[in-house]
Amino acid sequence: LKVFSLNSNRDLAREIASVIGVELGKCSVQRFSDGEIQINIEESIRGCDVYVIQSTSSPVNEHLMELLIMIDALKRASAKTINIVMPYYGYARQDRKARAREPITAKLAANLLETAGATRVITLDLHAPQIQGFFDIPIDHLMGVPILSEYFKNKAMNGDLVIVSPDHGGVTRARKMAERLKAPIAIIDKRRPKPNVAEVMNIVGNIDGKVAILIDDIIDTAGTITLAANALVENGASEVYACCTHPVLSGPAIERIENSNIKELVVTNSIALPEEKKIGKIVELSVAPLIGEAI
Amino acid sequence: LKVFSLNSNRDLAREIASVIGVELGKCSVQRFSDGEIQINIEESIRGCDVYVIQSTSSPVNEHLMELLIMIDALKRASAKTINIVMPYYGYARQDRKARAREPITAKLAANLLETAGATRVITLDLHAPQIQGFFDIPIDHLMGVPILSEYFKNKAMNGDLVIVSPDHGGVTRARKMAERLKAPIAIIDKRRPKPNVAEVMNIVGNIDGKVAILIDDIIDTAGTITLAANALVENGASEVYACCTHPVLSGPAIERIENSNIKELVVTNSIALPEEKKIGKIVELSVAPLIGEAI
Ligand SMILES: Nc1ncnc2c1ncn2[C@@H]1O[C@H](COP(=O)(O)O)[C@@H](O)[C@H]1O
Ligand SMILES: Nc1ncnc2c1ncn2[C@@H]1O[C@H](COP(=O)(O)O)[C@@H](O)[C@H]1O
Repeated sequence: LKVFSLNSNRDLAREIASVIGVELGKCSVQRFSDGEIQINIEESIRGCDVYVIQSTSSPVNEHLMELLIMIDALKRASAKTINIVMPYYGYARQDRKARAREPITAKLAANLLETAGATRVITLDLHAPQIQGFFDIPIDHLMGVPILSEYFKNKAMNGDLVIVSPDHGGVTRARKMAERLKAPIAIIDKRRPKPNVAEVMNIVGNIDGKVAILIDDIIDTAGTITLAANALVENGASEVYACCTHPVLSGPAIERIENSNIKELVVTNSIALPEEKKIGKIVELSVAPLIGEAI
Repeated sequence: LKVFSLNSNRDLAREIASVIGVELGKCSVQRFSDGEIQINIEESIRGCDVYVIQSTSSPVNEHLMELLIMIDALKRASAKTINIVMPYYGYARQDRKARAREPITAKLAANLLETAGATRVITLDLHAPQIQGFFDIPIDHLMGVPILSEYFKNKAMNGDLVIVSPDHGGVTRARKMAERLKAPIAIIDKRRPKPNVAEVMNIVGNIDGKVAILIDDIIDTAGTITLAANALVENGASEVYACCTHPVLSGPAIERIENSNIKELVVTNSIALPEEKKIGKIVELSVAPLIGEAI
C-alpha cells in the first residue's frame, strides 16, 4: 500500500498517512516553464495498491489535470490498483442540464478519471448523492455530518439547539445532524412574492430563543448562509452557528462571514484553507481519521 | 456547419470563420466565482457539423478543460459531428516514457478528447507525427513549412540561403523548407566532449557567408535557438533568421530573442501572442487559410 499526495491537500495527506501508519510516497509535481504539469514518481509502485490524495478544489482545472496525469503515470508504471481519494469533488454542482445545451461536467469528470485509469474513488459529501452513479468503478461516499455533529456535542452551547437547513435541498442533511444532537430542525424557505421583488425568507419551524446551527454541504460565496443567519436572528434565534463539509469560500465569502451574525463557522479540511482565509471565526476539523478508516 | 471559438485563439477563430464564409457561433465561456468553467452555447446545434477552435496553449490546463467541457455540452446537445481544431497541441512533448514512471500526457490528452466526444481532430505540426496514432478518430495533420517558406520566398534576402536545423530531430523539417527555397541545409550538432563539460556546437554543412534560416516546430524558452544563432554567426553566417510554427515563448524567451543575433523571428498564429510578446523582431503569419481549407 502506497499513499501519494498531489498539490491540493498536502497537510491532510500527511495526516492520513500517519493515521494509517505509512510514509507518504515520494513524488514531485511541478510545472515546466510553459505551465505544463511534470510529475515524477520517485519510487517503484509496480504491483502496489496506490492511493492518491487530491481534492479538485480551486484551481480546479490544475488540480484535476494533476490527478489525471498522476493516474496515467501510475497505470503505465503497473500499479495494481489506483484509488483516488477526493475529499472534495469539484464540478459537482454541474450535475444536470438545468438549461438547454449545458454540459454535465460532474459526469465528464467521472469519465475522465475512469479513462485515465482510476479503479476506485473515495469521496466525501457529494453535492448530489446521484453522482455516485456517474461512475462505473466502486465509489465510497463518506459523510461529514458525524464529524460536525461531534464537535457541537462536545462544545458547551448557550441554550437549546435547533438545526437549520438553509434551503429545501439540505433538509436530509439537517435531519441527520438533528438526530445526532437530539434537537429539532427548521428550514429556511425562500420565496419571491412577485416577479422582480426581493426574496423573502420565511422560517419553517420554531427557532425562538434557540441556538441555531445552520448546516450546508458547500459554502461558496457565502451569500445564502449569511442571509440565512440574518433571518434567523431577526426571527428570534439567540445565537447562530454555521457548519459545512466543504469550505470553498470564494469571492466575497470571507468578508461576508466576518460581517455576519454567524458566531462560528465549523468546516472540514476537505479543502485546504489558505492562510488568508483562516480567520478567527472559522474552526477546521480533520477528516483524516474518517478517510484513514475507508482506506 | 457551425464554428465556435473558445478562449485561446479568438482572433484566429474569427479569421477562419471569415475565410470559410460563416459567422462565429454564439457561445460564452466564463468562470464561476470559484474558478469552475461555465459554458453557455447560445444557439441550437442539433444535427450540425460543429467545429471548435482551441489551442491547448498556456494556460494549458484551463484551455484543455474548456475544450473538454465544450465537447461534452455539444455532444449532449445532439451535434452530428464534433470537429476539434487545435492549431497547437499542448503536452505534445510528453509523448513517450523517457524515464521510468513518467506519464505519456500526449496520449492521455488524446484519450480525454475522445472520451469527451470529439469525432475528428485538425492540428498543425505535432511535435512527433506519431501522436496521430494516439487517436482512434480521424486526424488531419497540417504543415506549417509551406507558410513559413512562402514568407521567405517573397522577401528580398541579402545573399545565398542555407536552411538550418537546430538539432538532429528537426532535419526532415529543414529538408522540406530547403526544397521549397532551393537552398542547401546545415545541422547544428551539439556534443558534450566529456561529462560535466559544456556542450560544443559543431555545424555540419557549409554556412560561410550565407544567410541562415533556423527552423524548428516549437520555440519555448528559446535557449536552443538563440545559442544556435550565436554559433552560426561565430562560424561565418552573414545573417540569421529563425522561424517556427508554434511560438510558446515562455520564461526568458522574449528577452533571449531580443538580445540574440536573430534578425527576425517568423512564427504562425497557432498560439496567440499576448501584446507584451509582440516585439519588433517577431513576424506573425496566419494559418487561417490553411485551416479554412481543411474544414
Ligand atoms: N462552480 C459553481 N458556482 C456556482 N454555481 C454553479 C457552479 N457550478 C454549477 N453551478 C450552478 O449551480 C446550479 C446547481 O446548484 P444546486 O441547485 O445547488 O444543485 C446549476 O444550475 C449550475 O448552473
Ligand atoms: N512542456 C515542456 N517543457 C519542457 N520540456 C518538456 C515539456 N514537456 C515534456 N518535456 C520534456 O521534453 C522531452 C521531450 O522533448 P524532445 O526530446 O524534444 O521530444 C521529454 O523528455 C520531456 O520530459
